[in-house]
Amino acid sequence: MSKSQNAISPSREEDYPLWYQEVVKAAELAESSPARGCMVIKPWGYGIWENIQRDLDRRIKETGHENAYFPLFVPLSLLEKEAAHVEGFAKECAVVTHHRLEEKDGKLIPAGELDEPLIVRPTSEAVIGEVYAKWVKSYRDLPLLINQWANVVRWEMRPRLFLRTAEFLWQEGHTVHANEEEARCEVMTMLEVYRSFAEEMLALPTIVGEKPASERFPGAVDTYSIEAMMQDRKALQAGTSHYLGENFSRASNIRFLDEQGDLRFAHTTSWGVSTRLIGALVMAHSDDDGLRLPPRVAPKQAVILPITPKSGDEGPILEFAAKLQKSLSGISYAGRPLCVALDKRDLRGGEKNWQWIKKGIPLRIEIGAREVESNCVCVYRRDADRKERIVMNPEELIGSITTILDQIQDNYLQQATLFLAENTETGIKTASDFCRFFTPVNAQKPEIHGGFVRAFWCEDADTEALLKDLKVTVRCIPLEQGEGSGTCVLSGRPARREAIFAKAY
Amino acid sequence: MSKSQNAISPSREEDYPLWYQEVVKAAELAESSPARGCMVIKPWGYGIWENIQRDLDRRIKETGHENAYFPLFVPLSLLEKEAAHVEGFAKECAVVTHHRLEEKDGKLIPAGELDEPLIVRPTSEAVIGEVYAKWVKSYRDLPLLINQWANVVRWEMRPRLFLRTAEFLWQEGHTVHANEEEARCEVMTMLEVYRSFAEEMLALPTIVGEKPASERFPGAVDTYSIEAMMQDRKALQAGTSHYLGENFSRASNIRFLDEQGDLRFAHTTSWGVSTRLIGALVMAHSDDDGLRLPPRVAPKQAVILPITPKSGDEGPILEFAAKLQKSLSGISYAGRPLCVALDKRDLRGGEKNWQWIKKGIPLRIEIGAREVESNCVCVYRRDADRKERIVMNPEELIGSITTILDQIQDNYLQQATLFLAENTETGIKTASDFCRFFTPVNAQKPEIHGGFVRAFWCEDADTEALLKDLKVTVRCIPLEQGEGSGTCVLSGRPARREAIFAKAY
Repeated sequence: MSKSQNAISPSREEDYPLWYQEVVKAAELAESSPARGCMVIKPWGYGIWENIQRDLDRRIKETGHENAYFPLFVPLSLLEKEAAHVEGFAKECAVVTHHRLEEKDGKLIPAGELDEPLIVRPTSEAVIGEVYAKWVKSYRDLPLLINQWANVVRWEMRPRLFLRTAEFLWQEGHTVHANEEEARCEVMTMLEVYRSFAEEMLALPTIVGEKPASERFPGAVDTYSIEAMMQDRKALQAGTSHYLGENFSRASNIRFLDEQGDLRFAHTTSWGVSTRLIGALVMAHSDDDGLRLPPRVAPKQAVILPITPKSGDEGPILEFAAKLQKSLSGISYAGRPLCVALDKRDLRGGEKNWQWIKKGIPLRIEIGAREVESNCVCVYRRDADRKERIVMNPEELIGSITTILDQIQDNYLQQATLFLAENTETGIKTASDFCRFFTPVNAQKPEIHGGFVRAFWCEDADTEALLKDLKVTVRCIPLEQGEGSGTCVLSGRPARREAIFAKAY
Repeated sequence: MSKSQNAISPSREEDYPLWYQEVVKAAELAESSPARGCMVIKPWGYGIWENIQRDLDRRIKETGHENAYFPLFVPLSLLEKEAAHVEGFAKECAVVTHHRLEEKDGKLIPAGELDEPLIVRPTSEAVIGEVYAKWVKSYRDLPLLINQWANVVRWEMRPRLFLRTAEFLWQEGHTVHANEEEARCEVMTMLEVYRSFAEEMLALPTIVGEKPASERFPGAVDTYSIEAMMQDRKALQAGTSHYLGENFSRASNIRFLDEQGDLRFAHTTSWGVSTRLIGALVMAHSDDDGLRLPPRVAPKQAVILPITPKSGDEGPILEFAAKLQKSLSGISYAGRPLCVALDKRDLRGGEKNWQWIKKGIPLRIEIGAREVESNCVCVYRRDADRKERIVMNPEELIGSITTILDQIQDNYLQQATLFLAENTETGIKTASDFCRFFTPVNAQKPEIHGGFVRAFWCEDADTEALLKDLKVTVRCIPLEQGEGSGTCVLSGRPARREAIFAKAY
């Protein structure tokens, strides 16, 4: 590859969806699996998920929740208890109907038919509700604050790695409260946990808001989300938090004796984020050379690349490199020891270098004979031009590495924040301007359009039908609203709140 | 409950299987779920699993492995590729045959039949083999050392919490090597990881050995295991490591170009431990008052129990307790901060105390008005008599708590080690003595019998048939063997190695 060419083809500009696929592939994050629609998460991708889990798990526990584990299978009769819920998932669920295989005419076929089909959980409200009904007896048992890390299955006809896969990994919190106020407080607490986590760990700025009725979780009274902007200016829902009211407690009979001795239905919530966050990371920060990983979530923060001579003694270089690796690995960063690779593989230097660029490692540290001689290293930052190098001695690097990593983390957040602000249009007042904004300039590239629109919306369902042609949806009604009311950009009717409109993943 | 009575009824002596169920229930570890044969792992039980995961994950990574994630579903055609493998699992697998639900006559029924049934993974050799065949091209790609943490499903007709459940959680390592020697070395490395983990974290002594042919993993060339003894003297297989030879690489076509440019089949291994370990923990260490948790694996190491007066000021007591909790929580233990609960619930002191005893918490720390006055605390160790208390001042406790916890951990290990040694009979030379050893003294209590027998065995399959009537199996052929050969205890034929015989879970 020549120095002027980029590592990923096509570029974002040329073909954004294909660029995304190529970045995921080049960074060795994941690939399609032999089971249709499911993915294999490769070590580099799973390393990101482990960091997401570790940090988010801490935040979930710090807000008073404990982890538990509930079964993979939901008996159909339980799923059916909440009408809106089952309707929402009936079209996309994996159904287990048999419990063994039997040979017939030399062929293995399903046998041992179950009396009742089991649904592979698409989410766990139904099965957890049934369990909670046994656990909750009195106000003394409340609040019940539990989370689980699990895999779930929602059948996907058009899967895309991380963004839409039949099986994905997630956490799902399920809580029970004595009244609406406490339950709504929980919903907001977790929404803020997600927002701050996305910002601090993933360098991902998001808009926090309420989903329109049409986009609510099946069975929820209210759904809230954090919405991020990808580099093609489309929205990606990155986490949701639901106030379920008494819907599931009535369906599952979760009742408790209050302090007055009256039997009452509890109020429940649920909230979750998934491996989709990795897709969001990729699309928010990567460039035409591949992945760019925020240091706090990177499986490794730096790689040392020894440049050994074709002939001659590589001993001093490897020794110098190993010593540096050891010193760096003792440094604490983002609550755990810095993870620094030493890549001694027998590969051309250029190829090796490009592999790490495409994997998005924050820092590359080159050490050759010259560096050993002059007791220095060449440091390349993934957030800088790829040829820009910083020469420093090992002690300087050891002393400043966490500062450099923090700078990279901040840079990604600032770039994404600026991009979100620059591509959120707040001046659109009429339906025709609105349509123009979302109509692709070039019919060949339907993905290139204006971005987000923030405008007053009357919240009537009929206006959402108008959006369908444009393939635009109301992403959310931001929690932060200005003073006063206005006129709906779509209907011209009076409107109380502003909404975010966008095309979305 | 009176002071002389035990917390768990029946006792181990009265009814061991029921005692086990009652301990699991009283400690709030797990319960049966609405999906038949699956379990709900409650927070206290899941906390144990989190500690198992954290520590074992570190050991797996320190031996050079990375984590990844492979799909939940195995297409039937892949499972079928290895004949012994599919035969081993065909009788106990959950089969997905449809991908949505449809209303018919007012009833929801499975719809969208799949062209090919999907098996919910009972283990992942088949699906991972297919993926590895794409990843492995050259000797440079080897060894491939990957682990995954996942749920698996094996249909169980007679489920028992933790010991046998339709769904369970586990880790499964899957590695690929260039030759038999390296693959066998990996198998032994992981077996030793399991043995030392069980000993150091779970205080569980195990016998390391090779499984007889009849107990091999379906598709394996050789299976090795660690075997533990429960308090009813039965064996429990606590972890396995398999040398798979070329069986799966031939089935999945995992081939590589060696250094000479020849295309060769790789050698693979797999190894795993599961939530069954929690069952082993319970049965190895608990007593008639409930669970006893080795401190290193306990979700919390200690609980502070403030004894507040019915009337009067509880302020100073709670303040004293909170201050102690804060000091203790800053101490590092087993690689992470000590976890100390402060139980302020409005419950009778006796009831509260018993709850924590049954949960097996290593230390209970009582603080009442008298203690605050004299600046001391009452410490109760779970490994001591329940009335035995140690009075010390807070500074003493802070200075010695990790030593005390280490003593408790050691005590459990020593007790279990002694129990294993005392109940392993090495002097049996004849088949009739062998039968007598395994025949219950009391027909009413078939679970009470001799324990393990270690004796020479000729390794012929016909001798295993003899064992069937006694409901005894060859647990393993220990790796550590004495010098020389002997005479088979069952057949009288010459025998090369000693085996461990036992009844088993």
